[in-house]
Amino acid sequence: MGMTIGEKILARACGKDVVKPGEIITAKVDLCMSNDGTTHLNIDIFEKKLKGEKVFDPEKVIFIVDHNVPAESTKTAEVHKKMRNFAQKHHIPFYEGAGVCHQIMIEDYVVPGQVIIAADSHTCSYGGLGAFGTGVGCTDLTSIMHSGETWLMVPETLNFVLEGNFRQGVYARDLILKVIGDIGADGATYKIMEFSGPAVKNLTIDDRVVLCNMAVEAGAKSGLVAPDERVIEYVKSRGRHEMHLFASDEDAVYEQSYAYNLADIEPMVAIPHNVDNVVPVTEIGAVKIDQAFIGSCNNGRIEELRVAAQILQGKKIAPYVKLLISPASKEVYLQALEEGLVDIFMESGAMVLNANCSVCWGSCQGVIGEGETLISTGTRNFKGRAGHPNSSVYLASAATVAASALVGKITDPRGLIG
Amino acid sequence: MGMTIGEKILARACGKDVVKPGEIITAKVDLCMSNDGTTHLNIDIFEKKLKGEKVFDPEKVIFIVDHNVPAESTKTAEVHKKMRNFAQKHHIPFYEGAGVCHQIMIEDYVVPGQVIIAADSHTCSYGGLGAFGTGVGCTDLTSIMHSGETWLMVPETLNFVLEGNFRQGVYARDLILKVIGDIGADGATYKIMEFSGPAVKNLTIDDRVVLCNMAVEAGAKSGLVAPDERVIEYVKSRGRHEMHLFASDEDAVYEQSYAYNLADIEPMVAIPHNVDNVVPVTEIGAVKIDQAFIGSCNNGRIEELRVAAQILQGKKIAPYVKLLISPASKEVYLQALEEGLVDIFMESGAMVLNANCSVCWGSCQGVIGEGETLISTGTRNFKGRAGHPNSSVYLASAATVAASALVGKITDPRGLIG
Repeated sequence: MGMTIGEKILARACGKDVVKPGEIITAKVDLCMSNDGTTHLNIDIFEKKLKGEKVFDPEKVIFIVDHNVPAESTKTAEVHKKMRNFAQKHHIPFYEGAGVCHQIMIEDYVVPGQVIIAADSHTCSYGGLGAFGTGVGCTDLTSIMHSGETWLMVPETLNFVLEGNFRQGVYARDLILKVIGDIGADGATYKIMEFSGPAVKNLTIDDRVVLCNMAVEAGAKSGLVAPDERVIEYVKSRGRHEMHLFASDEDAVYEQSYAYNLADIEPMVAIPHNVDNVVPVTEIGAVKIDQAFIGSCNNGRIEELRVAAQILQGKKIAPYVKLLISPASKEVYLQALEEGLVDIFMESGAMVLNANCSVCWGSCQGVIGEGETLISTGTRNFKGRAGHPNSSVYLASAATVAASALVGKITDPRGLIG
Repeated sequence: MGMTIGEKILARACGKDVVKPGEIITAKVDLCMSNDGTTHLNIDIFEKKLKGEKVFDPEKVIFIVDHNVPAESTKTAEVHKKMRNFAQKHHIPFYEGAGVCHQIMIEDYVVPGQVIIAADSHTCSYGGLGAFGTGVGCTDLTSIMHSGETWLMVPETLNFVLEGNFRQGVYARDLILKVIGDIGADGATYKIMEFSGPAVKNLTIDDRVVLCNMAVEAGAKSGLVAPDERVIEYVKSRGRHEMHLFASDEDAVYEQSYAYNLADIEPMVAIPHNVDNVVPVTEIGAVKIDQAFIGSCNNGRIEELRVAAQILQGKKIAPYVKLLISPASKEVYLQALEEGLVDIFMESGAMVLNANCSVCWGSCQGVIGEGETLISTGTRNFKGRAGHPNSSVYLASAATVAASALVGKITDPRGLIG
């Protein structure tokens, strides 16, 4: 009986030929990563319980300061200092203010076939490059930092078979919102969401990361797309040549399959306060916004910035509305500079912020007040996610967010492109 | 008996031909401005005590959100919302995230001869354009917003007579630090610091603003430079043609005069925890830094960014050191983009932040932790100014800050330029 890509990656990681859903394995971890959301807690545990010990491999434990950077409070500054000191002591890679952790991992570390564990829920992003990534809490991560191993139950896999092409003004972001709306916030709990089908070859790496990144919003353990030439070329172009290329067998067993034709997808919006509360933008009615945000590990790469620039070029955002843009990494920022996008954003009235989690994390930049409404390319719209408990977050594509910033209310981008 | 420029401006403002130091006058206010440091308090008072009333002139009351922007907390978001709503209701100019208030005022409003009152201590900056600017508390400002008038005691004037030219690696920033070090933090209390002499004609508008901006750090009520063709041309180029050109009479009476030859000035550093605690960089010894900041109303204009870029180009900042750069306004930022400076900063490892008060204000970006050391082009180095009460802030020029970021300790920039 055949195996899925997820099963094959996990089989390799535990040194077996075959694993089956439900089986508990001990997996070697190829990389582990922690950010300033919780690393101070790791360090406290490490220094209390593992005093004098080393991390399992100083090239495979990565610390990234991205959540509250630059520090907005002395409390945060202390967290960063603790990370900086630990990184220096253990000679591990340390990034501060270089971008959102997942984007940095994709740019600098991830290769197909790896198992990557990080103390962040959107670690499933790495499935866009054919790696199994999953998030854990900081106590688990502390143990992994030391042992280089973790236990895992092999998940069932759901197969999302994609065909067709997106129409103008519709993006992978709309597709994943549609999927989560369809299957629900618990529709993939502890499962792998695999994206397959004839449409995949046309999906950019950005598209694939967008899909896998939000798998966790349907409860998934991970998201995965089988790597193809496009992925291999990307990874090699960045100096990484060792990889393990897996793909699901034709007779792989999926718990369930879903079919989507990309041509049927419209611009979608997740309305407050759940990510699976999804409607087409055409059905949303008049929703006035106070702030718009383009960025995050889901939707802050150059592809989204280009789309936003196409819509914003030569126009001004609505009076009294803020548009905040945070490129997902310094590399993305530099590319946006080269293409003149930062100029376009600033001329439109946007604030361009340093590369970080920013408004998506909702605790250091662009926090919103009582009764205020944000439309965002971020990952979550939970109650209070962007600030005051009585505020509202809508999730949409960069195109829809940019269009909404221009009009001052949630707007279908399809009339405003180009 | 002759009058100083400051006396002439105040005489015009109170409708008299002559005023003398010590005289209490009621001055018409040409412009008043308030930022998100305290405007919420103004609005509370205005809406409680002046309910139903209007501001004295909606073109002359300007609200600028610059201190904590984008908002880092719901508390701040509420302040901004209050300002936004008041500005919209009273049809007054409103800026959010467009830069540091004083820089916006200089770019968009200030002309020679005006009296400008704002709820911010560095309002004295406008003396760089030959306007009398001074800071007041928020209760005073509320009254001015309504009446368009304020009482003032005419200050004595101190004359700083400048000759010569700066040597390479030395800037107006070093001069004003030297002056404050010489006369002390109370050396000009409630006086006007006038900068005059043959060297003034060679000073850029940036230089003049740098000098006047920090007059308050010696306790001054205002700083002033008599406007010349350079200022007139700048103001006209920005569409402002009505102005009142005053200069001190030859027989004007100064309380005291000081002579400075710019060629004698060296790179200076104000050491913790007072702005007048000033030493030449050559005497500072080994001071390791954790963070460096270039920005603020004092030292975040294109001239300083160019100097920093000259030093940073093609080099990398020291490991584990942060360099944060916040252009003083969107206009400065756009100019820096055009000149390729933002690329240079980011390639060097700096974080480029949106235009705002940023690290100088020390409560929303780049806050430092216990025992950490910052070198900054900001305005103040008071204990805790940048974060933890037990942290240290050194003040220096953009050149010295950039050089220090490269080396990781406070460094004389003169060996590192070009």
